[in-house]
Formats: sequence, structure tokens, C-alpha cells
Amino acid sequence: SPASSPMDNTPKKFMDFPFVTAPHRNLMIDLVSTVENRLGSQLKPCTLPLDVQHYYNQSGTSQGSLHIRSGHSSSQVDFILGSWLHCELPTGGALNITSLSAYLKASTDAPNFLIELIQSSPTSLVLILDLPPRKDLVLHPEYLQTFYENTQLDSLRQTLDKLPEVRPYYSSALYIRCLTSPTSIMICVDTEGARPGRIEEIIKDHVDPVAKEAIGIWLDQCACGQRNVDEAEKSYLEKRDGLIKNKTIQIDIGSSFPRLFGPDIAERILGVIREAYNG
Amino acid sequence: SPASSPMDNTPKKFMDFPFVTAPHRNLMIDLVSTVENRLGSQLKPCTLPLDVQHYYNQSGTSQGSLHIRSGHSSSQVDFILGSWLHCELPTGGALNITSLSAYLKASTDAPNFLIELIQSSPTSLVLILDLPPRKDLVLHPEYLQTFYENTQLDSLRQTLDKLPEVRPYYSSALYIRCLTSPTSIMICVDTEGARPGRIEEIIKDHVDPVAKEAIGIWLDQCACGQRNVDEAEKSYLEKRDGLIKNKTIQIDIGSSFPRLFGPDIAERILGVIREAYNG
Repeated sequence: SPASSPMDNTPKKFMDFPFVTAPHRNLMIDLVSTVENRLGSQLKPCTLPLDVQHYYNQSGTSQGSLHIRSGHSSSQVDFILGSWLHCELPTGGALNITSLSAYLKASTDAPNFLIELIQSSPTSLVLILDLPPRKDLVLHPEYLQTFYENTQLDSLRQTLDKLPEVRPYYSSALYIRCLTSPTSIMICVDTEGARPGRIEEIIKDHVDPVAKEAIGIWLDQCACGQRNVDEAEKSYLEKRDGLIKNKTIQIDIGSSFPRLFGPDIAERILGVIREAYNG
Repeated sequence: SPASSPMDNTPKKFMDFPFVTAPHRNLMIDLVSTVENRLGSQLKPCTLPLDVQHYYNQSGTSQGSLHIRSGHSSSQVDFILGSWLHCELPTGGALNITSLSAYLKASTDAPNFLIELIQSSPTSLVLILDLPPRKDLVLHPEYLQTFYENTQLDSLRQTLDKLPEVRPYYSSALYIRCLTSPTSIMICVDTEGARPGRIEEIIKDHVDPVAKEAIGIWLDQCACGQRNVDEAEKSYLEKRDGLIKNKTIQIDIGSSFPRLFGPDIAERILGVIREAYNG
């Protein structure tokens, strides 16, 4: 059960994940810890201002936390970005989003990492879990083979697909759909009518092990793997990565944050994310 | 009901679609007629040898038909390719596949067209319907907007997605998944346990209108639209189109045809398709 009530605006830390259920919180803490322990010395500490590490709107109905750690110059990791977001809904419920993404530099062409859990009710969960490719897979079948076929990532997707409560999730933004790999997990879990606690059970027994296996593959094969990238490929990657980041901010938080937090706080948070993105 | 029994090996025509149910046959005839009437004078006649227009294995358990019409030199259409395939299954049932695809030349970068209906039992249907993009959509958001957002293609996908019998279909080949657009329809319809004739009803009432709308969009916006393609883009398109064709033959029919028809007939059919692809 949640550690905090929505109206309590005392400072909260990123790793508290204060508004989500225990299995959801445990999963996020485990994933962030796994990445930070493995990459450890490659990452600079999080130096975000306190009012970005925990921010909230005036009425206290929306709050969030941002956690960004950049890679040192010798690292292939550009930065990791963790966040949680909690918004009371007019209907009485709450929207809770937690995410962890990891971006690599153009010194490697290996895929990035992304997990996002969206709970808009106690019986529903949207899960986005992917190693988004950094090249056009149609033109680069050998890249597809290395990172998606040989790693058997599709078996993870199939594991979750077998659950009767799972249906595919489609982002309303077509551009966001284009960013995914062919093994991406984009699902909506709906447990309406099932026994209480079923969604927590699915997170603990199914989502948790799948997410941990995916982050392990990403750490082994992508973050810590060696790739040869020449200058032409490097500038291609910089162009493509940059375009994705700009479009993603615009589509994703660029539209929702001003509405949830007002223009000033939204601009503060967006500014910090833009800075991390443009390194 | 089917017009022919499986053991009857009298010559059959492409437009007969002899082994599928009436709604399925009517849909295919309508689609091919619509394309041929609209593109009419742009297309050369089908000049395939008779033993390619209708081919079968020695035991008569598998047969198929191929129909290819190339575009004249002044046309943006490279070629259209229609086919049907009928294979008796060891279990007593039959596998029936019908398809229509249309490829454009590198003088335009507009999407191609593809529809494929796969029936492996009287209560199941796999439908693949897409305008496969010819550029990396991540790098070309304006292309995404022109052909996929402005055309509202996703509303067609959503229409079918609402049917309770529909589940997503995933090709086992990851490369094939990479070729699709974000509005692609890749579904499996399963009517096991429903009233008899339900699958025919779904084809007639739901698949048919959606497919006709998609082919209309493709004819208006892609086959007959004007695009400016410079020399650099043209060679990019030629490279990408060529790679897709080679990989598709290899993955799709390259593996199944020798098994179904023996090496000689398989090589005859594959040779004709390769020639059209590389024409």
C-alpha cells in the first residue's frame, strides 16, 4: 500500500516511489539499483536542484520526482533518467507513472533502454518495456539479429502476452509507435472484475522478472558491449537520437506538464530534461 | 462455399480464387478489379507462363496461382502482384492464402500496398493489411504525417481492433515486423465456438469495407500522388526497396515453397517473383 497520502507535500525522494504499491515500488527500486550498481563509477552523481528532484503544483494535486545521472566522458552511457509522477484525478482516483530510461552516446550504436509503468486505476496497468533501436532496422538486419534475435528478447514479450488480462497498448501518437523495436512490450493489463490484489500479483510474478531480464540484457549487450562506430555512423546516430529526443519531449511531457503543473514549474522541469537530452 | 474440390486439377485462373469462401473471394476480386480499373492503362498485361499462372505439386495436395502486371515506363507503379495458395493439411483441413501487393518505383517515395488473408481453419483468419513505408519514419516525421496521420489510417485499424474475436498477430520473423507502418493491421480473428459462418460475416461486414478504404487511400495518395524525389533519395529508395524484397522472399516463400511444391516448381515460381522484384 502507498507510503504517503496525496495531500502530504513534505519533501520526498526519487527512490521513495511514495504513491505506488509495494510490488511496483520494489520493481522500480530494484531496476534503478541494478543499473546504478552495475554502471556505478561511470555515472556522475545526480546534481539536480531540490525543486526538480521533488516538485508539485500549488494545489498539491500533482507532484513528481526527477532523477538524472550523466555518464562520465569515458563512459558509453549518455545519461539515465528516472521519474515518478502522481496526479489526483477529478474522479477521485489517481494517476501514477514511474519510469526509467537510459540513453547511450553516439560512440556506440547499441539500443537504449526504457521502462514505464502507468497506473490510472487500481485495476489497470500500462507497461512499456523496450530496448528502442537506434538505427533503421529495415536497412540493418545484422543489427536486428545482434540485439533482438540473438538476445531472444521476444520470448519476454511472449511471456506477458500469454496472460489473459493482457491486451496490446497503442500510443495515440504514431511517432511514438515508430520508435519501438519489434520485440517491444507495449501492453495494457486490465484486472477489472478479478480478485483484489491481482494487478500487484501480476507486477510481482510476471512484470518484475521480465523487466529484470530485459535490464540485464541491456546492461550486458548494450551499455557494456563494444561496437565499432565510424564518423559517418556517429553523425547519423547524433541526428537520429536528437530528433527522437526533441519529438518525444514535444509529444510526451511538452503537452501534459503545463496543464498539470502550470507554465513555470513545467518550464523548470522541461528545461532540465532538455539540458540532459542535449548534453 | 468453395467453387472447386481440392483434388480437381483442371486449369484455374487467378481471378477464380477457387478455394475460399464467397465473402473472401468477393473481397479479393473487388480489390484486384479496383486496382486494375484505376491503374488500367499504366499496367502491362500479365504475361506469365501458364504453368506459373496456375501451378500444383505432383500429388495435387498443393496448388497456387500467380498474377503479375508491371507498370509501363511512364508509370509510378513498379508492379502489382496477386496470388492464391491452397494446401491440404495432414489434419484434413486446408490452408488458404490470398494476397495482393503493389510496389511503386523509386520515382516516388510513397508507401506500397499489401493485403494478405490466411485461413488455416474454418474458424480462423489472419489478416495483414498495410501501406508499408519506404523510409525510416523516425527520421522522417513529415512523411509519417502525410501518409499515416493525415489519411487517418489508424481509424481503420481501430475499427477491427474493437471486434471481440480479434487479437494481434505477430509474425515469427522479426524482420517482417520491422517492415510495417504504425497503422498496420496485423490481426488474428478466432471464431472458435461462435455460430457457424461468423468468420465469413466478419470478412463481409468488417474486413471488406476496411480493405476497400485502405486501397482507396493508397490509390489516391500513393499510386497517383506526386512526390519530389531527388537523385540521393532515389538511390536510398532503390537500396531499401531491394533489401526488403530480397529478405522477404528469403523469409516468406523461400523456405515454404520448396517444402510444399518440391525444388523444381518452387524454383520456377521464385524465379518469376525475383524477376518482377529486380525488374
